[in-house]
Amino acid sequence: MTYAIIGTGAIGGYYGAMLQRSGKEVHFLLHSDYEEVRRDGLRVLSPKGDFTLPQVHAYRHATDMPKADVVIVALKTTRQPLLAELLPPLLKPTTTVVLIQNGIGVEEEVQRLVPQARLAAGVAFICVDKPSAGTIRHQQMGRLVVAPFSCEESDAAAIVDDLTNAGLVARTGTHAEERWNKAIWNMPFNGLCTVLHATTDQTVNEPHSRALVRELMLEVIGAARALGVTTLTERHADDSIAYTESMTPYSPSMKLDFEQFRPMEIEYLYHRPVAMGEAAGMPMPRLKMLAAQLELIEKHHQRP
Amino acid sequence: MTYAIIGTGAIGGYYGAMLQRSGKEVHFLLHSDYEEVRRDGLRVLSPKGDFTLPQVHAYRHATDMPKADVVIVALKTTRQPLLAELLPPLLKPTTTVVLIQNGIGVEEEVQRLVPQARLAAGVAFICVDKPSAGTIRHQQMGRLVVAPFSCEESDAAAIVDDLTNAGLVARTGTHAEERWNKAIWNMPFNGLCTVLHATTDQTVNEPHSRALVRELMLEVIGAARALGVTTLTERHADDSIAYTESMTPYSPSMKLDFEQFRPMEIEYLYHRPVAMGEAAGMPMPRLKMLAAQLELIEKHHQRP
Repeated sequence: MTYAIIGTGAIGGYYGAMLQRSGKEVHFLLHSDYEEVRRDGLRVLSPKGDFTLPQVHAYRHATDMPKADVVIVALKTTRQPLLAELLPPLLKPTTTVVLIQNGIGVEEEVQRLVPQARLAAGVAFICVDKPSAGTIRHQQMGRLVVAPFSCEESDAAAIVDDLTNAGLVARTGTHAEERWNKAIWNMPFNGLCTVLHATTDQTVNEPHSRALVRELMLEVIGAARALGVTTLTERHADDSIAYTESMTPYSPSMKLDFEQFRPMEIEYLYHRPVAMGEAAGMPMPRLKMLAAQLELIEKHHQRP
Repeated sequence: MTYAIIGTGAIGGYYGAMLQRSGKEVHFLLHSDYEEVRRDGLRVLSPKGDFTLPQVHAYRHATDMPKADVVIVALKTTRQPLLAELLPPLLKPTTTVVLIQNGIGVEEEVQRLVPQARLAAGVAFICVDKPSAGTIRHQQMGRLVVAPFSCEESDAAAIVDDLTNAGLVARTGTHAEERWNKAIWNMPFNGLCTVLHATTDQTVNEPHSRALVRELMLEVIGAARALGVTTLTERHADDSIAYTESMTPYSPSMKLDFEQFRPMEIEYLYHRPVAMGEAAGMPMPRLKMLAAQLELIEKHHQRP
């Protein structure tokens, strides 16, 4: 299978580079780093071993790329409207599109924009950043769950095989369950760490904010259950907090976006899941409050 | 009647200076500004007219002060334990103690510390700060409500007479109603403006945070009503927001405390009212969340 990566940031660059290293044909769409990557390729720094790909297929425009068997979308959801233009040129009738993006409601919106796309959620548990153009620093984890939305189960399974062969931990999963399971961690930590200028360890080590994190997680779990994801229970909150304690202190992606004056993913990380919970009779008052706080700080955050 | 001011900051200094200017005998307890005020007196800058009191009765220790008919306490509630030492030397059997302090549960705690004290709440609606030692800058408002807690109604009325004669807007009131009425404004704006580094106008002008302010106010009103203060209704939230829009953009006292690395009044502004609401069957989840956020930012806020 051939791959196209839409959005070669830290996440897209990491998974794409791992696939290419394993022998797959991968085509990378780039924006700000195009010149550097075309000239020097991609470099991955990782506790599992550094490596360089001196040559990669780099593109500035999706219309110059060949159609692919699998398209991995790793754009920020703040760029979601672009997909109406970027995706169609890359699609064969059988292409699977994996959305490695944060939040809830992502697949629903892309399906609306590109009705013919065969979609899967790509739920990544990974700490990775991009210290400079073309260099990807993998910090910890890397697991990717591919959960069919409008593609077939077999499409997801084939992608998982390729990821596994590339040395990654991957599995298939059930769409709503995987999205909401990740939200248990994502919704409390992204917003709180950003609003409070705190790292994950600071947030779980202060007793009041630790209790708050748990309450926020229970709101997510309550909404998920109201929406039919009954496999998620209170135990997932405690596991998620225990897990966070074991992590290297970390600044979630929203905090990095804020600090670097990039738009924050408030829409898909907060507004959409909160609206879905409300519609299912399970409002999330604390997470709605966090979303309002994020809206206010974003409005007044000016590059100095 | 003679007056003693415990805590000659912006608030205590302003009311004390106004009373002295009107001819009352006033004794001021000072801490950091003692030398300057003893030498130069107090200066008040106000849109209602600037004035200077070149000579004031200034003290460094409460034990050096004469007993007074009225003791006005204008310390931050973070200093509350000091009152067990400071108050008793100033009390005659008939002395009234007016606590011009922020929050809920203030009188209850002072009564526990000094059982013989005859207490009233002093609920101030005033914007005032202290730009330098001995100088008080009155910005807007100034109304003081004196609400008996364990003193007589007539004691409060006599103090209101003195305040009125001093050119201030003052009235008596009912204890729980006045404390909770002020909390409608205090609890949302102090915490939100501090956590979000925002002024009052920014907070009410952004649509999400404006809606949040209203939800926080409704939590306060709900708890107040559960505690028997049935005169407070939803209308008070709308009035308070409309009023805030008419105010000069303002940083509440908690935000100034935070910015100047002073301890914040989280205990009486949040933890105590939240516990009282919970005990009355009316939890305040969003305000409890705000308290937890304040605890976290206070823990990691270091003087540079």
